[in-house]
Amino acid sequence: MVVNTSTKMHVVIVGGGFAGFACARELAKSNEVRVTLIDKNNYHQFQPLLYQLATSVLGTDDIATSIRQFFCGHPNVEVKLGEVIAADPKTRTIHTRDGQSYQGDFLVLAAGSQVNFFGTVGAKENAFPLYSVEDAQRLRSRILTVFEDADRDPKLVGQGALNFVIVGGGPTGVETAGALADMIRLNMPREYPDLALQQARVYLIDHGHALLGPFPVEAHEYAARALQRKGVQLRLGIGVKEVAPDRVLLSDGTSIPTRTVVWAGGLMASPLAANAGLRQGHGGRIAVRPDLTVEGFPGVYVLGDFANIPCADDETLPQLGSVAQQCGRWTAQNIWAEIAGETRTPFHYHDKGIMAMIGRDAAVAAVGQKRHELDGPIAFAAWLGLHALLMSGVRARIETFVDWAWGYFSRARPIQVLDRTDTSRIDWDNDTNREGNLAA
Amino acid sequence: MVVNTSTKMHVVIVGGGFAGFACARELAKSNEVRVTLIDKNNYHQFQPLLYQLATSVLGTDDIATSIRQFFCGHPNVEVKLGEVIAADPKTRTIHTRDGQSYQGDFLVLAAGSQVNFFGTVGAKENAFPLYSVEDAQRLRSRILTVFEDADRDPKLVGQGALNFVIVGGGPTGVETAGALADMIRLNMPREYPDLALQQARVYLIDHGHALLGPFPVEAHEYAARALQRKGVQLRLGIGVKEVAPDRVLLSDGTSIPTRTVVWAGGLMASPLAANAGLRQGHGGRIAVRPDLTVEGFPGVYVLGDFANIPCADDETLPQLGSVAQQCGRWTAQNIWAEIAGETRTPFHYHDKGIMAMIGRDAAVAAVGQKRHELDGPIAFAAWLGLHALLMSGVRARIETFVDWAWGYFSRARPIQVLDRTDTSRIDWDNDTNREGNLAA
Repeated sequence: MVVNTSTKMHVVIVGGGFAGFACARELAKSNEVRVTLIDKNNYHQFQPLLYQLATSVLGTDDIATSIRQFFCGHPNVEVKLGEVIAADPKTRTIHTRDGQSYQGDFLVLAAGSQVNFFGTVGAKENAFPLYSVEDAQRLRSRILTVFEDADRDPKLVGQGALNFVIVGGGPTGVETAGALADMIRLNMPREYPDLALQQARVYLIDHGHALLGPFPVEAHEYAARALQRKGVQLRLGIGVKEVAPDRVLLSDGTSIPTRTVVWAGGLMASPLAANAGLRQGHGGRIAVRPDLTVEGFPGVYVLGDFANIPCADDETLPQLGSVAQQCGRWTAQNIWAEIAGETRTPFHYHDKGIMAMIGRDAAVAAVGQKRHELDGPIAFAAWLGLHALLMSGVRARIETFVDWAWGYFSRARPIQVLDRTDTSRIDWDNDTNREGNLAA
Repeated sequence: MVVNTSTKMHVVIVGGGFAGFACARELAKSNEVRVTLIDKNNYHQFQPLLYQLATSVLGTDDIATSIRQFFCGHPNVEVKLGEVIAADPKTRTIHTRDGQSYQGDFLVLAAGSQVNFFGTVGAKENAFPLYSVEDAQRLRSRILTVFEDADRDPKLVGQGALNFVIVGGGPTGVETAGALADMIRLNMPREYPDLALQQARVYLIDHGHALLGPFPVEAHEYAARALQRKGVQLRLGIGVKEVAPDRVLLSDGTSIPTRTVVWAGGLMASPLAANAGLRQGHGGRIAVRPDLTVEGFPGVYVLGDFANIPCADDETLPQLGSVAQQCGRWTAQNIWAEIAGETRTPFHYHDKGIMAMIGRDAAVAAVGQKRHELDGPIAFAAWLGLHALLMSGVRARIETFVDWAWGYFSRARPIQVLDRTDTSRIDWDNDTNREGNLAA
């Protein structure tokens, strides 16, 4: 084990997501260690709300916080911008794409996930993932663009301009489908009075038969009913065979013409996992011991979405912001314990509950196997509270809540700014599927 | 003249800037007319604050408002997204890049300006203009990138990474120089403790000998002193010969190594002016009569930055947001007058004053030839009030003011989010100018 010497112990943390950020934040409290926190973005992103950015409810700056600014009051935390492409767990050294290396007494790998297209033909090229701020900005641009294009040229509605297909019935898919359906029902009729919005469709597709997998069984039904009330078309038990530029092909032989396929279909460990010199398990994630260290590599911790974290019954913990955040804090405690010559403790996840918001007026929450269905303003208030607990940065909290409250009561989409983040021009002329709306 | 018939009169407005937006807003009040407002962006941008977006004080959504959303309570205003590339003033018809045409009983051209590089070699390729939200986002990315690059590789400071050159001593140049100098002095030392920030330089270059041209003479000196107190290097009476990727060459034979040249050097009418079938004057702008109509083309109005608007003494009015806004409202009144068979009135600009903020603690204001110099919180408060009057949209006002107040008292740059809007990667290796800081 690393022994405490006269100089400060150095902790290198890869990733400024929930796990790495929380770990750095906890370590910042003590001057016993110095911390280097590296991320490929200069901001921490609040991923549970990406769908709100994509549907014009929140702005980029509401859910992205400058990492450097957050830690600038803590001289023992050094923030570096860099994409980590390889790690040597033996020497606890990491290497960035631009040739920098960082070596620590402790190495904390919290590099997060990337989208998993499961090899689906055309998905990488044509679908819109929703895992990062850049993803959400691109999706927002695409959504606003199809409305504008159809407004200028109404026949594009027949080509599926206003069909939105969401792949994946987990929390991200359900929340996105609900928010999009609300946007179409509540906002767009006022903004696009000439558009045939009754032809707009939101589809939610999942190869499984239940929505909201991680939630208790009763929640699955509740979510389905809530979405259907909003007009969302559910296609459960059906897989996606191909995502073409102008439609999506399903496993039952049908296809849906669309220019907007949202990929909420699964995650795998980010690319660094393959170059970290560690054993990968399910989803490409790194296998860790209960205390989040790795067998055979003293001083190395792996956290959050980047790890398969064991819990009871041979299961692993789900990829959730709250798990990641608690991992991060726990690891800081264990590092202090190591430095003090004490023993590490196995990570214990304190389940404060999960919650999904289905549009503006329905939500489902679960704490363990207890389920709560909430409607109307109460749903909104509870959801608000839960996310407040997860958010970092006072200003972000205040302002995001102003946005939320404003948006909820006014039903506005204040952030409907069409920037050029979706650089792919839609080629409406080259369309293989001009007949009808849904070629079933 | 157009005669009122049983059907509603149709007003086509090109441009959703201050002039076009104000005109549409005024016309929206009456159901006598129907309005089509066309802009190439789906948002109205608050241009006087672009430098605050570029220096991470405000976010994109604070200064961009969805045009469609603003008018969605007004069924007589139709909003279209489109880039107008040609106009036929005889038939009052305009054509967009994607092949749409719009014809009105009245045509209001308020297509604004574009940056004028005056043929300076390399300026178009290498300088950062500051006239649109996209410009400001790109500049923000560049500023944050040079700090991050220098933080990882300190020798880049010697290559001019932290030299910022602002070309143009008008309000935009002065405000940008002040804001950048404040950012370097007040924010960056905490955020980049390892960086040799004492080597950072902000240069302000103008071929004339005075700053803040449109202001009274005493204000010129005040602005120069205020900037010099902040450490800004003034190079007045000197022109820019060339903007290279890694430095700027000046007319006195010296050069400054830099990766960030901000072009605040002048404006000319936007490209439509050349295809509008109207006579262009100084700056490519359209010559108008005192009532903002064009000789020989009944029903055609030209407003804001797109026009040379005559005022006393054979002069034309400056390109200012307040001029444009008042033009817009005035034109709406004249259109109503025409419809009612009354006579149009010549535009009278009511000068409520101009103001420039020099960093966070100094400002200069002028109402006519009366000049006010303000320091500290009073400067900030006065500036706040002036911009409040210009801003459209209640939410934008509230939130932007929260940001401003927060930023002023906390000295924070809350919006320090480095997105990828500056897609040009800096090629540090290919550098012709590695010696020293300022090769004079």
